[in-house]
Amino acid sequence: MTFDLAAYLRERRQLVDEALDVYLPPASQPPPRLHEAMRYSLFCGGKRLRPILALAGAEAVGGEPHHVLPLACAVECIHTFSLIHDDLPAIDDDDLRRGNPTNHVVYGEAMAILAGDALLALAFELIAECRLFLPADRVLDALTMVARASGTRGMVGGQVSDIECEGRDDLDEPTVASIHARKTGALLLASLLAGARLCGASVAQEAALREYGRQVGLAFQITDDILDLEGDAAKLGKPLGSDLKQDKATYPKVLGVPASRALARNASEAAVAALAGFHHQADPLRALAGYVVERES
Amino acid sequence: MTFDLAAYLRERRQLVDEALDVYLPPASQPPPRLHEAMRYSLFCGGKRLRPILALAGAEAVGGEPHHVLPLACAVECIHTFSLIHDDLPAIDDDDLRRGNPTNHVVYGEAMAILAGDALLALAFELIAECRLFLPADRVLDALTMVARASGTRGMVGGQVSDIECEGRDDLDEPTVASIHARKTGALLLASLLAGARLCGASVAQEAALREYGRQVGLAFQITDDILDLEGDAAKLGKPLGSDLKQDKATYPKVLGVPASRALARNASEAAVAALAGFHHQADPLRALAGYVVERES
Repeated sequence: MTFDLAAYLRERRQLVDEALDVYLPPASQPPPRLHEAMRYSLFCGGKRLRPILALAGAEAVGGEPHHVLPLACAVECIHTFSLIHDDLPAIDDDDLRRGNPTNHVVYGEAMAILAGDALLALAFELIAECRLFLPADRVLDALTMVARASGTRGMVGGQVSDIECEGRDDLDEPTVASIHARKTGALLLASLLAGARLCGASVAQEAALREYGRQVGLAFQITDDILDLEGDAAKLGKPLGSDLKQDKATYPKVLGVPASRALARNASEAAVAALAGFHHQADPLRALAGYVVERES
Repeated sequence: MTFDLAAYLRERRQLVDEALDVYLPPASQPPPRLHEAMRYSLFCGGKRLRPILALAGAEAVGGEPHHVLPLACAVECIHTFSLIHDDLPAIDDDDLRRGNPTNHVVYGEAMAILAGDALLALAFELIAECRLFLPADRVLDALTMVARASGTRGMVGGQVSDIECEGRDDLDEPTVASIHARKTGALLLASLLAGARLCGASVAQEAALREYGRQVGLAFQITDDILDLEGDAAKLGKPLGSDLKQDKATYPKVLGVPASRALARNASEAAVAALAGFHHQADPLRALAGYVVERES
């Protein structure tokens, strides 16, 4: 079996980018600067990992990826909203993201806050649009999964814990794992599971995908931590060592780089193992599990 | 007919407050400070006008108000999120709200941004909970209405236009009307209509409620503008003249106070007239149309 992941990612990114361009209000509509600011961060060279997980989750259970495109766009809107707000001076105070000035540097803090807010509201409007293709009950299931993953039990809660743990020297692995599981893992997992749920995943399929998603989320975040220390700044589009500078809770900080790298590889293998019950429809997910630990940005 | 509005408001506020306390994560759960910050602004003495409109909209079309309680709580979460973000130093930079220090003054800017974000995400989770009582299709309708009213075509878009119009001397009434309709009117209207839609409003009922909601929203906002100039600072819980200080787009600025007052009264009367086709179930809405122009805070 040879699965051409590069071609798959290219094709899926294009699909997502074209849909996002349709779903986002045009910069020609008022208020133009708000729409410009939303589009600036959304079309800033993201990997589109969350949308691709949503589409691949649908595919893995025999669904039609096009039917979950609004969900795929929604989770990218939520991811982008979180990046815009995290970069704000009051939070992580980052000036550079993916090689470009961050949203508030270009549009000012007020607009960055409001552009993030608007992306979050738009996300839920988009998920509701899946009703055009799929049963309303499943749409509400998917929407609830994504909302929970975004709020205090998920992304926002993880970000708060992350801020509260800055500079602490007594962190252990469970604490780092809990922060990462909420800050990054929850939305990755919800993207995958919501895509599968929309397309009628069985209980057994969902349990397997949940295990896959947990492991891939872990592998992804450990790799992020390592790249921030040892990556290529040009490929990452930002200076190295920003976690160190802010003394963030990271895997290398509590385990060192070699043990962190081994943990990421194990998680990636465990993710693939969780898919044993799936046929070739899960090949994209299998390939993605390798990609998240081998990527350079 | 005598309708005891004071008793009605008291009873409805208590209902909403009790439900909000159940729906909001407790401050004992991690991350405690995030949940504290969310609760601080949510239980800060609001009028609960949006939830009450949601409940009254349900009631007007013969629905059971308890069935739309999650929606009612959701629109209050969205209103509170918008107040927290609007008060931030980067936006309106207000230190006082309803007689208390604003969220970022108590919890810091980072937490205020994230508490607002979490309230917005929670709101959509709550609306989805209406499925316990009502058909999924109507829940998605209501959710879409509220999401649109919150985003770029509604509240957030209105706030951006409001900021962009600060200090301008060439404002006319249509511009002020457009800002207010989006910044304040959209969520008021969506609260009412979503409540009615959830309970199976007919097309004719919805058209009448839409007209009522537009007029009440207008009356409410003009009254807000006037109170900021001529109200009682102690009752308002904030110093007078903050709109003047920031040279905001207001009705008194373009029309003067007497003409603004007359416009508010006309809008309130037009709101009541729009309800001609409704029986006594719409009495709360009729009474509310008077309340929004006569209130002192």
